[in-house]
Amino acid sequence: MLICKVVKPLVSTNRIADFQHKHLQVVLDGSTQKVAVDAVGAIPGDWVICVGSSAAREAAGSKSYPSDLTIVGIIDHWDPDAAKEMAAGKPANPGAPSGSGGAK
Amino acid sequence: MLICKVVKPLVSTNRIADFQHKHLQVVLDGSTQKVAVDAVGAIPGDWVICVGSSAAREAAGSKSYPSDLTIVGIIDHWDPDAAKEMAAGKPANPGAPSGSGGAK
Amino acid sequence: MLICKVVKPLVSTNRIADFQHKHLQVVLDGSTQKVAVDAVGAIPGDWVICVGSSAAREAAGSKSYPSDLTIVGIIDHWDPDAAKEMAAGKPANPGAPSGSGGAK
Amino acid sequence: MLICKVVKPLVSTNRIADFQHKHLQVVLDGSTQKVAVDAVGAIPGDWVICVGSSAAREAAGSKSYPSDLTIVGIIDHWDPDAAKEMAAGKPANPGAPSGSGGAK
Amino acid sequence: MLICKVVKPLVSTNRIADFQHKHLQVVLDGSTQKVAVDAVGAIPGDWVICVGSSAAREAAGSKSYPSDLTIVGIIDHWDPDAAKEMAAGKPANPGAPSGSGGAK
Repeated sequence: MLICKVVKPLVSTNRIADFQHKHLQVVLDGSTQKVAVDAVGAIPGDWVICVGSSAAREAAGSKSYPSDLTIVGIIDHWDPDAAKEMAAGKPANPGAPSGSGGAK
Repeated sequence: MLICKVVKPLVSTNRIADFQHKHLQVVLDGSTQKVAVDAVGAIPGDWVICVGSSAAREAAGSKSYPSDLTIVGIIDHWDPDAAKEMAAGKPANPGAPSGSGGAK
Repeated sequence: MLICKVVKPLVSTNRIADFQHKHLQVVLDGSTQKVAVDAVGAIPGDWVICVGSSAAREAAGSKSYPSDLTIVGIIDHWDPDAAKEMAAGKPANPGAPSGSGGAK
Repeated sequence: MLICKVVKPLVSTNRIADFQHKHLQVVLDGSTQKVAVDAVGAIPGDWVICVGSSAAREAAGSKSYPSDLTIVGIIDHWDPDAAKEMAAGKPANPGAPSGSGGAK
Repeated sequence: MLICKVVKPLVSTNRIADFQHKHLQVVLDGSTQKVAVDAVGAIPGDWVICVGSSAAREAAGSKSYPSDLTIVGIIDHWDPDAAKEMAAGKPANPGAPSGSGGAK
Protein backbone atom coordinates (compact mmCIF):
# COMPACT_ATOMS: atom_id res chain seq x y z
CA MET A 1 0.00 0.00 0.00
CA LEU A 2 1.16 3.56 -0.62
CA ILE A 3 1.68 6.29 1.95
CA CYS A 4 0.01 9.39 0.52
CA LYS A 5 -0.99 12.86 1.67
CA VAL A 6 -4.54 14.06 1.02
CA VAL A 7 -4.52 17.29 -1.04
CA LYS A 8 -8.17 18.16 -1.71
CA PRO A 9 -11.48 16.70 -2.89
CA LEU A 10 -11.89 16.28 -6.65
CA VAL A 11 -15.04 17.29 -8.47
CA SER A 12 -15.97 15.36 -11.60
CA THR A 13 -19.57 15.93 -12.64
CA ASN A 14 -19.38 13.94 -15.86
CA ARG A 15 -18.34 10.50 -14.70
CA ILE A 16 -19.45 6.91 -15.20
CA ALA A 17 -22.49 5.78 -13.23
CA ASP A 18 -20.55 2.98 -11.51
CA PHE A 19 -18.64 5.57 -9.49
CA GLN A 20 -21.86 6.41 -7.62
CA HIS A 21 -21.57 9.26 -5.10
CA LYS A 22 -18.42 8.19 -3.31
CA HIS A 23 -15.92 10.92 -2.51
CA LEU A 24 -12.82 11.25 -4.64
CA GLN A 25 -9.68 12.80 -3.16
CA VAL A 26 -6.57 14.11 -4.87
CA VAL A 27 -3.64 12.49 -3.04
CA LEU A 28 0.07 13.06 -3.32
CA ASP A 29 2.15 9.91 -3.92
CA GLY A 30 5.71 11.21 -3.65
CA SER A 31 5.56 14.09 -6.14
CA THR A 32 2.77 12.65 -8.29
CA GLN A 33 -0.87 13.59 -7.83
CA LYS A 34 -3.34 10.72 -8.12
CA VAL A 35 -7.04 10.28 -7.45
CA ALA A 36 -8.27 7.90 -4.76
CA VAL A 37 -11.72 6.80 -3.64
CA ASP A 38 -12.14 7.72 0.02
CA ALA A 39 -13.43 4.87 2.19
CA VAL A 40 -12.57 6.38 5.59
CA GLY A 41 -13.49 10.07 5.52
CA ALA A 42 -10.05 11.68 5.29
CA ILE A 43 -9.48 15.45 5.18
CA PRO A 44 -6.82 17.52 3.37
CA GLY A 45 -3.47 17.24 5.13
CA ASP A 46 -4.08 13.71 6.46
CA TRP A 47 -1.42 11.08 5.79
CA VAL A 48 -3.26 8.01 4.58
CA ILE A 49 -2.77 4.41 3.43
CA CYS A 50 -3.90 3.86 -0.17
CA VAL A 51 -4.44 0.38 -1.55
CA GLY A 52 -4.14 -0.27 -5.28
CA SER A 53 -4.46 -3.22 -7.68
CA SER A 54 -7.61 -5.33 -7.59
CA ALA A 55 -7.81 -4.93 -3.80
CA ALA A 56 -8.87 -1.31 -4.32
CA ARG A 57 -12.24 -2.48 -5.57
CA GLU A 58 -13.23 -4.54 -2.55
CA ALA A 59 -11.80 -1.86 -0.26
CA ALA A 60 -14.15 0.65 -1.91
CA GLY A 61 -17.15 -1.42 -0.96
CA SER A 62 -17.77 -4.07 -3.58
CA LYS A 63 -15.98 -6.41 -5.97
CA SER A 64 -17.35 -4.57 -8.97
CA TYR A 65 -16.56 -1.00 -7.91
CA PRO A 66 -14.18 0.43 -10.53
CA SER A 67 -11.42 1.82 -8.28
CA ASP A 68 -7.69 1.16 -8.63
CA LEU A 69 -6.74 3.32 -5.61
CA THR A 70 -8.71 3.49 -2.37
CA ILE A 71 -7.94 5.25 0.92
CA VAL A 72 -8.20 2.48 3.52
CA GLY A 73 -6.76 4.07 6.65
CA ILE A 74 -5.55 7.30 8.25
CA ILE A 75 -2.06 7.05 9.74
CA ASP A 76 -2.02 8.12 13.41
CA HIS A 77 1.40 9.81 13.24
CA TRP A 78 3.65 10.29 10.22
CA ASP A 79 6.81 12.32 10.00
CA PRO A 80 7.79 12.58 6.33
CA ASP A 81 11.23 13.99 7.17
CA ALA A 82 12.14 11.11 9.45
CA ALA A 83 10.89 8.83 6.70
CA LYS A 84 13.24 10.47 4.18
CA GLU A 85 16.23 10.12 6.49
CA MET A 86 15.46 6.46 7.03
CA ALA A 87 15.20 5.92 3.30
CA ALA A 88 18.59 7.59 2.93
CA GLY A 89 20.15 4.92 5.11
CA LYS A 90 20.29 6.60 8.53
CA PRO A 91 19.71 4.27 11.49
CA ALA A 92 16.05 3.63 12.24
CA ASN A 93 14.84 4.17 15.76
CA PRO A 94 11.79 1.93 15.97
CA GLY A 95 11.46 2.16 19.74
CA ALA A 96 10.88 5.91 19.74
CA PRO A 97 7.37 7.29 19.25
CA SER A 98 6.82 7.79 15.54
CA GLY A 99 7.07 11.42 14.56
CA SER A 100 10.19 12.09 16.62
CA GLY A 101 12.64 9.56 15.11
CA GLY A 102 15.70 11.39 13.83
CA ALA A 103 14.52 14.87 14.83
CA LYS A 104 16.42 16.46 17.70
CA MET B 1 -6.58 6.66 -10.63
CA LEU B 2 -4.40 8.83 -12.82
CA ILE B 3 -4.94 12.46 -13.77
CA CYS B 4 -4.34 12.63 -17.53
CA LYS B 5 -4.84 15.11 -20.36
CA VAL B 6 -6.58 13.93 -23.52
CA VAL B 7 -4.35 14.44 -26.59
CA LYS B 8 -6.26 13.04 -29.57
CA PRO B 9 -8.24 10.02 -30.75
CA LEU B 10 -6.20 7.00 -31.84
CA VAL B 11 -6.96 5.08 -35.01
CA SER B 12 -6.13 1.38 -35.06
CA THR B 13 -7.85 -0.45 -37.92
CA ASN B 14 -6.16 -3.79 -37.30
CA ARG B 15 -7.15 -4.63 -33.75
CA ILE B 16 -8.59 -7.58 -31.85
CA ALA B 17 -12.33 -8.11 -32.16
CA ASP B 18 -12.84 -7.81 -28.38
CA PHE B 19 -12.08 -4.10 -28.59
CA GLN B 20 -15.34 -3.60 -30.51
CA HIS B 21 -15.99 -0.04 -31.71
CA LYS B 22 -15.23 1.82 -28.50
CA HIS B 23 -13.22 5.03 -28.86
CA LEU B 24 -9.55 5.01 -27.98
CA GLN B 25 -7.86 8.22 -26.86
CA VAL B 26 -4.18 9.08 -26.57
CA VAL B 27 -3.75 10.55 -23.08
CA LEU B 28 -0.78 12.21 -21.45
CA ASP B 29 0.21 10.75 -18.05
CA GLY B 30 2.93 13.15 -16.89
CA SER B 31 5.23 13.08 -19.92
CA THR B 32 4.25 9.60 -21.13
CA GLN B 33 1.61 9.02 -23.79
CA LYS B 34 -0.71 6.10 -23.17
CA VAL B 35 -3.90 4.80 -24.77
CA ALA B 36 -7.18 4.75 -22.85
CA VAL B 37 -10.65 3.47 -23.66
CA ASP B 38 -13.07 6.39 -23.47
CA ALA B 39 -16.19 5.67 -21.38
CA VAL B 40 -17.37 9.27 -20.95
CA GLY B 41 -16.94 11.06 -24.30
CA ALA B 42 -13.92 13.25 -23.59
CA ILE B 43 -12.42 15.64 -26.13
CA PRO B 44 -8.80 16.72 -26.72
CA GLY B 45 -7.65 19.12 -24.01
CA ASP B 46 -9.91 17.68 -21.29
CA TRP B 47 -8.32 16.72 -17.97
CA VAL B 48 -9.67 13.29 -17.10
CA ILE B 49 -9.56 10.55 -14.48
CA CYS B 50 -8.18 7.27 -15.84
CA VAL B 51 -8.62 4.01 -13.97
CA GLY B 52 -6.16 1.15 -14.47
CA SER B 53 -5.65 -2.38 -13.19
CA SER B 54 -8.52 -4.86 -13.40
CA ALA B 55 -11.03 -2.08 -12.63
CA ALA B 56 -10.43 -0.70 -16.13
CA ARG B 57 -12.32 -3.63 -17.60
CA GLU B 58 -15.54 -3.16 -15.68
CA ALA B 59 -15.30 0.60 -16.15
CA ALA B 60 -15.19 0.02 -19.92
CA GLY B 61 -18.51 -1.75 -19.82
CA SER B 62 -17.97 -5.41 -18.98
CA LYS B 63 -15.82 -7.75 -16.94
CA SER B 64 -14.31 -9.28 -20.06
CA TYR B 65 -13.46 -6.09 -21.95
CA PRO B 66 -9.66 -6.09 -22.46
CA SER B 67 -8.80 -2.59 -21.19
CA ASP B 68 -6.11 -1.72 -18.66
CA LEU B 69 -6.80 2.04 -18.77
CA THR B 70 -10.25 3.59 -19.04
CA ILE B 71 -11.36 7.23 -18.88
CA VAL B 72 -14.01 7.26 -16.14
CA GLY B 73 -14.59 10.97 -15.52
CA ILE B 74 -13.88 14.48 -16.75
CA ILE B 75 -12.46 16.78 -14.08
CA ASP B 76 -14.52 19.98 -13.72
CA HIS B 77 -11.52 22.26 -13.07
CA TRP B 78 -7.85 21.36 -13.06
CA ASP B 79 -4.89 23.69 -12.82
CA PRO B 80 -1.74 21.69 -13.59
CA ASP B 81 0.55 24.51 -12.42
CA ALA B 82 -1.09 24.73 -8.99
CA ALA B 83 -0.79 20.95 -8.85
CA LYS B 84 2.95 21.13 -9.55
CA GLU B 85 3.48 23.74 -6.82
CA MET B 86 1.61 21.60 -4.33
CA ALA B 87 3.69 18.57 -5.27
CA ALA B 88 6.82 20.67 -4.71
CA GLY B 89 5.82 21.22 -1.09
CA LYS B 90 4.19 24.64 -1.17
CA PRO B 91 1.24 25.04 1.22
CA ALA B 92 -2.04 23.74 -0.18
CA ASN B 93 -5.05 26.00 -0.09
CA PRO B 94 -7.95 23.55 -0.01
CA GLY B 95 -10.57 26.13 0.88
CA ALA B 96 -10.04 28.13 -2.30
CA PRO B 97 -11.92 27.20 -5.48
CA SER B 98 -9.85 24.63 -7.39
CA GLY B 99 -7.93 26.22 -10.22
CA SER B 100 -6.87 29.26 -8.21
CA GLY B 101 -4.91 27.58 -5.39
CA GLY B 102 -1.40 29.00 -5.27
CA ALA B 103 -1.88 31.48 -8.11
CA LYS B 104 -2.15 35.09 -7.00
CA MET C 1 -2.52 0.63 -22.76
CA LEU C 2 1.06 1.28 -23.82
CA ILE C 3 2.29 2.58 -27.17
CA CYS C 4 5.21 0.32 -28.12
CA LYS C 5 7.38 -0.36 -31.17
CA VAL C 6 7.89 -3.96 -32.28
CA VAL C 7 11.59 -4.87 -32.32
CA LYS C 8 11.78 -8.55 -33.30
CA PRO C 9 10.32 -11.97 -32.54
CA LEU C 10 11.64 -13.70 -29.43
CA VAL C 11 12.63 -17.35 -29.41
CA SER C 12 12.25 -19.26 -26.17
CA THR C 13 12.38 -23.02 -26.68
CA ASN C 14 12.25 -23.92 -22.99
CA ARG C 15 9.01 -22.37 -21.82
CA ILE C 16 5.95 -23.39 -19.84
CA ALA C 17 3.34 -25.43 -21.71
CA ASP C 18 0.60 -22.86 -21.06
CA PHE C 19 2.31 -20.46 -23.48
CA GLN C 20 1.39 -22.80 -26.34
CA HIS C 21 2.68 -21.76 -29.78
CA LYS C 22 1.67 -18.12 -29.73
CA HIS C 23 4.18 -15.65 -31.09
CA LEU C 24 6.22 -13.57 -28.66
CA GLN C 25 7.56 -10.20 -29.75
CA VAL C 26 10.23 -8.01 -28.18
CA VAL C 27 8.67 -4.54 -27.95
CA LEU C 28 10.17 -1.21 -26.96
CA ASP C 29 8.25 0.67 -24.23
CA GLY C 30 10.08 3.99 -24.10
CA SER C 31 13.66 2.79 -23.67
CA THR C 32 12.79 -0.52 -21.99
CA GLN C 33 12.51 -3.78 -23.90
CA LYS C 34 9.64 -6.03 -22.86
CA VAL C 35 8.07 -9.19 -24.22
CA ALA C 36 4.48 -9.21 -25.50
CA VAL C 37 2.21 -11.95 -26.81
CA ASP C 38 1.18 -11.05 -30.36
CA ALA C 39 -2.59 -11.29 -30.96
CA VAL C 40 -2.71 -9.33 -34.23
CA GLY C 41 0.26 -10.40 -36.38
CA ALA C 42 2.54 -7.38 -36.05
CA ILE C 43 5.92 -7.09 -37.77
CA PRO C 44 9.16 -5.40 -36.66
CA GLY C 45 8.87 -1.62 -36.94
CA ASP C 46 5.10 -1.51 -36.32
CA TRP C 47 3.82 0.85 -33.65
CA VAL C 48 1.36 -1.14 -31.58
CA ILE C 49 -1.05 -0.92 -28.63
CA CYS C 50 -0.08 -3.26 -25.79
CA VAL C 51 -2.51 -4.09 -23.00
CA GLY C 52 -1.23 -5.15 -19.59
CA SER C 53 -2.66 -6.17 -16.24
CA SER C 54 -5.25 -8.96 -16.10
CA ALA C 55 -6.77 -7.77 -19.40
CA ALA C 56 -3.68 -9.13 -21.19
CA ARG C 57 -4.88 -12.65 -20.55
CA GLU C 58 -8.27 -12.35 -22.16
CA ALA C 59 -6.75 -10.34 -24.99
CA ALA C 60 -4.40 -13.25 -25.68
CA GLY C 61 -7.31 -15.57 -26.22
CA SER C 62 -8.47 -16.97 -22.90
CA LYS C 63 -8.93 -16.06 -19.26
CA SER C 64 -6.26 -18.53 -18.21
CA TYR C 65 -3.54 -17.60 -20.71
CA PRO C 66 -0.53 -16.43 -18.66
CA SER C 67 0.24 -13.12 -20.39
CA ASP C 68 0.72 -9.74 -18.70
CA LEU C 69 1.36 -7.86 -21.96
CA THR C 70 -0.49 -8.51 -25.21
CA ILE C 71 -0.37 -6.69 -28.55
CA VAL C 72 -4.01 -5.83 -29.26
CA GLY C 73 -3.80 -3.42 -32.19
CA ILE C 74 -1.54 -1.89 -34.81
CA ILE C 75 -1.63 1.93 -34.88
CA ASP C 76 -2.45 3.25 -38.34
CA HIS C 77 -0.12 6.28 -38.13
CA TRP C 78 2.22 7.22 -35.33
CA ASP C 79 4.80 9.98 -35.31
CA PRO C 80 6.99 9.51 -32.21
CA ASP C 81 8.62 12.95 -32.64
CA ALA C 82 5.29 14.79 -32.67
CA ALA C 83 4.38 12.73 -29.62
CA LYS C 84 7.53 13.88 -27.81
CA GLU C 85 6.84 17.53 -28.60
CA MET C 86 3.32 17.21 -27.30
CA ALA C 87 4.57 15.58 -24.11
CA ALA C 88 7.01 18.49 -23.71
CA GLY C 89 4.08 20.89 -23.53
CA LYS C 90 3.94 22.26 -27.07
CA PRO C 91 0.42 23.01 -28.31
CA ALA C 92 -1.38 19.95 -29.66
CA ASN C 93 -2.99 20.19 -33.06
CA PRO C 94 -5.76 17.62 -32.84
CA GLY C 95 -7.51 18.73 -36.02
CA ALA C 96 -4.54 17.88 -38.24
CA PRO C 97 -4.10 14.36 -39.62
CA SER C 98 -2.13 12.29 -37.11
CA GLY C 99 1.52 12.06 -38.01
CA SER C 100 1.80 15.72 -38.99
CA GLY C 101 0.85 17.39 -35.68
CA GLY C 102 3.60 19.80 -34.65
CA ALA C 103 5.79 19.22 -37.72
CA LYS C 104 5.87 22.11 -40.15
CA MET D 1 8.15 -10.14 -5.59
CA LEU D 2 10.04 -7.24 -4.07
CA ILE D 3 13.01 -7.40 -1.72
CA CYS D 4 12.24 -4.92 1.07
CA LYS D 5 13.61 -3.99 4.49
CA VAL D 6 11.19 -3.75 7.42
CA VAL D 7 11.31 -0.27 9.00
CA LYS D 8 8.70 -0.25 11.76
CA PRO D 9 5.07 -1.16 12.54
CA LEU D 10 2.44 1.31 11.34
CA VAL D 11 -0.43 2.42 13.53
CA SER D 12 -3.69 3.36 11.83
CA THR D 13 -6.61 3.48 14.24
CA ASN D 14 -9.14 4.78 11.73
CA ARG D 15 -9.12 2.11 9.03
CA ILE D 16 -11.65 0.04 7.11
CA ALA D 17 -13.11 -2.95 8.91
CA ASP D 18 -11.88 -5.40 6.26
CA PHE D 19 -8.31 -4.84 7.43
CA GLN D 20 -9.16 -6.63 10.70
CA HIS D 21 -6.35 -6.72 13.26
CA LYS D 22 -3.51 -7.84 11.02
CA HIS D 23 -0.18 -6.13 11.54
CA LEU D 24 0.92 -3.47 9.09
CA GLN D 25 4.62 -2.79 8.58
CA VAL D 26 6.36 0.15 6.94
CA VAL D 27 8.84 -1.40 4.48
CA LEU D 28 11.54 0.18 2.37
CA ASP D 29 11.41 -0.69 -1.35
CA GLY D 30 14.58 0.88 -2.67
CA SER D 31 14.21 4.43 -1.35
CA THR D 32 10.40 4.40 -1.21
CA GLN D 33 8.47 3.62 1.96
CA LYS D 34 5.39 1.46 1.48
CA VAL D 35 2.98 -0.35 3.79
CA ALA D 36 2.72 -4.14 3.77
CA VAL D 37 0.48 -6.59 5.61
CA ASP D 38 2.68 -8.90 7.66
CA ALA D 39 1.89 -12.61 7.19
CA VAL D 40 5.07 -14.03 8.75
CA GLY D 41 5.86 -12.00 11.88
CA ALA D 42 8.80 -9.91 10.69
CA ILE D 43 10.67 -7.42 12.90
CA PRO D 44 12.34 -4.08 12.04
CA GLY D 45 15.62 -4.67 10.20
CA ASP D 46 14.53 -7.94 8.57
CA TRP D 47 14.97 -8.29 4.81
CA VAL D 48 11.72 -9.70 3.50
CA ILE D 49 9.95 -10.85 0.34
CA CYS D 50 6.85 -8.79 -0.43
CA VAL D 51 4.26 -9.98 -2.93
CA GLY D 52 2.04 -7.47 -4.73
CA SER D 53 -0.75 -7.52 -7.29
CA SER D 54 -3.78 -9.72 -6.70
CA ALA D 55 -1.57 -12.40 -5.11
CA ALA D 56 -1.17 -10.14 -2.08
CA ARG D 57 -4.74 -10.81 -1.09
CA GLU D 58 -4.52 -14.58 -0.93
CA ALA D 59 -1.10 -14.33 0.70
CA ALA D 60 -2.70 -12.23 3.47
CA GLY D 61 -5.11 -15.02 4.29
CA SER D 62 -8.13 -14.80 2.03
CA LYS D 63 -9.19 -13.92 -1.50
CA SER D 64 -11.18 -10.94 -0.28
CA TYR D 65 -8.57 -9.38 2.02
CA PRO D 66 -7.82 -5.90 0.65
CA SER D 67 -4.01 -5.99 0.52
CA ASP D 68 -1.82 -5.09 -2.47
CA LEU D 69 1.47 -5.80 -0.66
CA THR D 70 2.02 -8.68 1.75
CA ILE D 71 5.18 -9.89 3.50
CA VAL D 72 5.38 -13.58 2.56
CA GLY D 73 8.87 -14.59 3.68
CA ILE D 74 11.94 -13.52 5.64
CA ILE D 75 15.19 -13.83 3.66
CA ASP D 76 17.77 -15.94 5.52
CA HIS D 77 20.79 -13.86 4.41
CA TRP D 78 20.81 -10.71 2.35
CA ASP D 79 23.75 -8.44 1.62
CA PRO D 80 22.42 -5.26 0.03
CA ASP D 81 25.92 -4.08 -0.94
CA ALA D 82 26.72 -7.28 -2.83
CA ALA D 83 23.31 -6.90 -4.48
CA LYS D 84 24.17 -3.38 -5.62
CA GLU D 85 27.50 -4.51 -7.10
CA MET D 86 25.77 -7.28 -8.98
CA ALA D 87 23.19 -4.86 -10.32
CA ALA D 88 26.05 -2.64 -11.47
CA GLY D 89 27.34 -5.43 -13.67
CA LYS D 90 30.13 -6.93 -11.55
CA PRO D 91 30.53 -10.70 -11.92
CA ALA D 92 28.14 -12.70 -9.74
CA ASN D 93 29.57 -15.40 -7.52
CA PRO D 94 26.62 -17.74 -7.08
CA GLY D 95 28.68 -20.55 -5.58
CA ALA D 96 29.76 -18.51 -2.56
CA PRO D 97 27.54 -18.35 0.50
CA SER D 98 25.18 -15.41 0.14
CA GLY D 99 26.25 -12.43 2.18
CA SER D 100 29.93 -12.71 1.26
CA GLY D 101 29.74 -12.21 -2.51
CA GLY D 102 31.97 -9.32 -3.50
CA ALA D 103 33.06 -8.43 0.04
CA LYS D 104 36.71 -9.20 0.83
CA MET E 1 6.60 -9.76 -19.66
CA LEU E 2 9.99 -8.64 -18.41
CA ILE E 3 13.39 -9.68 -19.71
CA CYS E 4 15.45 -10.53 -16.62
CA LYS E 5 18.78 -12.16 -15.79
CA VAL E 6 18.87 -14.88 -13.16
CA VAL E 7 21.28 -13.96 -10.33
CA LYS E 8 21.03 -16.75 -7.76
CA PRO E 9 18.56 -18.87 -5.79
CA LEU E 10 16.99 -17.23 -2.74
CA VAL E 11 16.68 -19.00 0.58
CA SER E 12 13.76 -18.05 2.81
CA THR E 13 13.14 -20.60 5.54
CA ASN E 14 10.40 -18.63 7.32
CA ARG E 15 7.78 -18.20 4.62
CA ILE E 16 4.04 -18.68 4.23
CA ALA E 17 2.85 -22.24 3.66
CA ASP E 18 1.20 -21.37 0.35
CA PHE E 19 4.64 -20.93 -1.23
CA GLN E 20 5.21 -24.69 -0.89
CA HIS E 21 8.64 -25.90 -1.98
CA LYS E 22 8.91 -24.10 -5.31
CA HIS E 23 12.27 -22.54 -6.13
CA LEU E 24 12.68 -18.81 -5.75
CA GLN E 25 15.28 -17.00 -7.86
CA VAL E 26 16.73 -13.53 -7.48
CA VAL E 27 16.45 -11.91 -10.91
CA LEU E 28 17.78 -8.64 -12.24
CA ASP E 29 15.17 -6.40 -13.91
CA GLY E 30 17.28 -3.57 -15.30
CA SER E 31 19.21 -2.56 -12.19
CA THR E 32 16.59 -3.73 -9.67
CA GLN E 33 16.74 -7.12 -7.97
CA LYS E 34 13.42 -8.90 -7.62
CA VAL E 35 12.32 -12.38 -6.58
CA ALA E 36 10.60 -14.71 -9.05
CA VAL E 37 9.09 -18.17 -8.72
CA ASP E 38 10.92 -20.50 -11.11
CA ALA E 39 8.58 -22.58 -13.31
CA VAL E 40 11.17 -23.72 -15.87
CA GLY E 41 14.36 -24.64 -14.00
CA ALA E 42 16.60 -21.67 -14.85
CA ILE E 43 20.19 -21.33 -13.64
CA PRO E 44 22.23 -18.24 -12.71
CA GLY E 45 23.25 -16.31 -15.80
CA ASP E 46 20.20 -17.33 -17.86
CA TRP E 47 18.20 -14.59 -19.57
CA VAL E 48 14.57 -15.34 -18.85
CA ILE E 49 11.03 -14.14 -19.47
CA CYS E 50 9.20 -13.19 -16.27
CA VAL E 51 5.45 -12.73 -16.19
CA GLY E 52 3.84 -10.48 -13.57
CA SER E 53 0.36 -9.37 -12.58
CA SER E 54 -2.34 -11.97 -11.96
CA ALA E 55 -0.93 -14.15 -14.76
CA ALA E 56 2.03 -14.96 -12.50
CA ARG E 57 -0.20 -17.10 -10.34
CA GLU E 58 -1.46 -19.40 -13.04
CA ALA E 59 2.01 -19.54 -14.57
CA ALA E 60 3.32 -20.81 -11.23
CA GLY E 61 0.98 -23.76 -11.34
CA SER E 62 -2.39 -22.76 -9.93
CA LYS E 63 -4.82 -19.89 -9.73
CA SER E 64 -4.32 -19.57 -5.98
CA TYR E 65 -0.50 -19.65 -5.89
CA PRO E 66 0.62 -16.32 -4.39
CA SER E 67 3.21 -15.22 -6.98
CA ASP E 68 3.37 -11.84 -8.70
CA LEU E 69 6.47 -12.71 -10.77
CA THR E 70 7.10 -16.10 -12.37
CA ILE E 71 9.87 -17.27 -14.71
CA VAL E 72 7.98 -18.71 -17.69
CA GLY E 73 10.69 -19.20 -20.32
CA ILE E 74 14.42 -19.20 -20.97
CA ILE E 75 15.45 -16.99 -23.91
CA ASP E 76 17.51 -18.93 -26.47
CA HIS E 77 19.84 -16.04 -27.35
CA TRP E 78 19.94 -12.58 -25.81
CA ASP E 79 22.49 -9.87 -26.40
CA PRO E 80 21.90 -7.13 -23.82
CA ASP E 81 24.29 -4.72 -25.58
CA ALA E 82 22.46 -4.98 -28.90
CA ALA E 83 19.27 -4.47 -26.94
CA LYS E 84 20.62 -1.27 -25.40
CA GLU E 85 21.67 0.09 -28.81
CA MET E 86 18.24 -0.63 -30.21
CA ALA E 87 16.60 1.11 -27.26
CA ALA E 88 18.86 4.11 -27.90
CA GLY E 89 17.37 4.48 -31.37
CA LYS E 90 19.94 2.76 -33.57
CA PRO E 91 18.46 0.91 -36.56
CA ALA E 92 17.24 -2.57 -35.72
CA ASN E 93 18.38 -5.45 -37.87
CA PRO E 94 15.57 -7.96 -37.46
CA GLY E 95 16.70 -10.21 -40.28
CA ALA E 96 20.04 -11.01 -38.67
CA PRO E 97 20.33 -13.85 -36.16
CA SER E 98 19.61 -12.50 -32.69
CA GLY E 99 22.75 -11.78 -30.73
CA SER E 100 24.59 -10.22 -33.64
CA GLY E 101 22.34 -7.23 -34.39
CA GLY E 102 24.39 -4.04 -34.24
CA ALA E 103 27.69 -5.73 -33.37
CA LYS E 104 30.24 -5.75 -36.16
